[in-house]
Amino acid sequence: MKKLINKPEDVVIEELKGIEYAHSDLVKVHYDPNFIMRADAPVKGKVAVISGGGSGHEPMHGGFVGMGMLDAACPGAVFTSPTPDQMLEATKAVNGGAGVLHIVKNYTGDIMNFEMAADLARAEGIEVEAVVTNDDVAVQDSLYTAGRRGVGVTVLTEKICGAAAEAGRSLKDVADLCRKVNGAGRTMGMALTSCTVPHAGKPTFDLPEDEMEIGIGIHGEPGRTRMKLKTADEITEMLMEPIIGDLPYKAGDNVLLFVNSMGGTPLVELYIIYRKAVEIATKHGLKVVRNLIGPYITSLEMAGCSITMLKMDDDLTKLWDAPVKTPGLRWGV
Amino acid sequence: MKKLINKPEDVVIEELKGIEYAHSDLVKVHYDPNFIMRADAPVKGKVAVISGGGSGHEPMHGGFVGMGMLDAACPGAVFTSPTPDQMLEATKAVNGGAGVLHIVKNYTGDIMNFEMAADLARAEGIEVEAVVTNDDVAVQDSLYTAGRRGVGVTVLTEKICGAAAEAGRSLKDVADLCRKVNGAGRTMGMALTSCTVPHAGKPTFDLPEDEMEIGIGIHGEPGRTRMKLKTADEITEMLMEPIIGDLPYKAGDNVLLFVNSMGGTPLVELYIIYRKAVEIATKHGLKVVRNLIGPYITSLEMAGCSITMLKMDDDLTKLWDAPVKTPGLRWGV
Repeated sequence: MKKLINKPEDVVIEELKGIEYAHSDLVKVHYDPNFIMRADAPVKGKVAVISGGGSGHEPMHGGFVGMGMLDAACPGAVFTSPTPDQMLEATKAVNGGAGVLHIVKNYTGDIMNFEMAADLARAEGIEVEAVVTNDDVAVQDSLYTAGRRGVGVTVLTEKICGAAAEAGRSLKDVADLCRKVNGAGRTMGMALTSCTVPHAGKPTFDLPEDEMEIGIGIHGEPGRTRMKLKTADEITEMLMEPIIGDLPYKAGDNVLLFVNSMGGTPLVELYIIYRKAVEIATKHGLKVVRNLIGPYITSLEMAGCSITMLKMDDDLTKLWDAPVKTPGLRWGV
Repeated sequence: MKKLINKPEDVVIEELKGIEYAHSDLVKVHYDPNFIMRADAPVKGKVAVISGGGSGHEPMHGGFVGMGMLDAACPGAVFTSPTPDQMLEATKAVNGGAGVLHIVKNYTGDIMNFEMAADLARAEGIEVEAVVTNDDVAVQDSLYTAGRRGVGVTVLTEKICGAAAEAGRSLKDVADLCRKVNGAGRTMGMALTSCTVPHAGKPTFDLPEDEMEIGIGIHGEPGRTRMKLKTADEITEMLMEPIIGDLPYKAGDNVLLFVNSMGGTPLVELYIIYRKAVEIATKHGLKVVRNLIGPYITSLEMAGCSITMLKMDDDLTKLWDAPVKTPGLRWGV
């Protein structure tokens, strides 16, 4: 295992320390239980937006804490759900009196622990709504999931709901918006290589030198199919067509196109994929009006990519464009 | 070779097409000769700042074109210098009448081709200054370099000189500033794995499963030493101590600390490195006043990192904080 780490059991705590040193202008780091919160939280009268999940997907979620996006993020151990007490304490810490939205990726452990935290927070008088993201079209049910997995669209819900909360919308409105974004978004990913969880010390799965896996999950869960490596254009088609056909996206739709690195893929390859994805979208009559390209929801050092498409309207576009100031996404300020 | 590409010979042109599709609000892409320029170039009366070099280091340089940073970037083939006609045409295209600064990394091919372009541009009446970056403390002379290699500080010169040009400073002032930043910056890198140039089809070098290379170059040029893999903290010390001792940085200095991924290193590992680097800097009495953490000057999918330190003063801090709006770096707008 080749990693820039010390002891596997110290990975998350040392990462948090690095984030604390680097971004104290934007965030505060709370230890035991571990969570990252906005430096100025709680923001009085604003709906608070929280997410969390296993570590190893950075910058999601901790890198998205700050003005215009998340109020807090709870990192579990690598690829392991955060505990209910993390979510509960974060919820209490950032509650500004207008309620708290939990954005939860559809993994059984995350859902169970977020639900428990929401119940405990409600028992303390905090209004909590939870929305589950499940945008991965690749497979139905998976290693850690009943139904579809929550992947790339989660990043988009965090940006858009964060902007809505910042604009003063109510908890019900922000939660409805989150369901709307999840409902209008679809994702599919692929891997060229596996990744290695520090504690495990060896690759999560084996992928022969000339093969790839289409429909991979962000923890290396099995996808749809393994096959010999294809060209970037063929791979892009294998991701785009199931996405477009699933919603389905229709001629005339405006879309946001998000090409994401799984962690080990150079930017040059993402732009090659993006290029073909735009051409395929255009062929279907879709208009790409916004984009996001880079490593935003990763799987440690896995080589590969995912494509997420989100059907946009004027409200979503306005919220997407709204200022955001986090370690991982920043514009307008 | 596992890459998300089509034909190796189409990598750069297809990447440029992706950039054109993605960022037409910020940049224009010129083909044959290839360069990326600000969408609003030439900016009348402003010094233009240009850089370039082999592709495969993205987002450097093309991702740094835009308001507050570069006016143009010339991408060569992967790990191959751009040609003089690229630099010449870019220089002519972005010249706003106040002269053009060429920021050149210290590689023999880059220097030769940039010099030729500068001479040709001067013959057409354009005032050109060139500054060479050579911040890599690892080795003296290298595979493609006489003297020290130009690496991480290049990103910092582009941000700082871009801000100075935006503020209306003269060509002489912006060039002097570039020399000052290069003189106050030092870098050292390391690799856990090699990278594979698409045309070559196999790794640039072999590194056994339990070894790393300290002092690696961004094209995989040999470093100082190979050894068994160490912990993140030990590796950080092996990079930081030669950097601090070289300038030398002294107790009381304010510094910018830039922890860079070589391309295949997850963000979680960069924060672990950053954490230790801050602690080492603090032990030496240095104060880290600004930072940059992520993949900014990469070597395709190479796993590893580099650390760059820059001694800051009030002017440099003000220029660092100035608004920038490029595909790869953005704040304040």
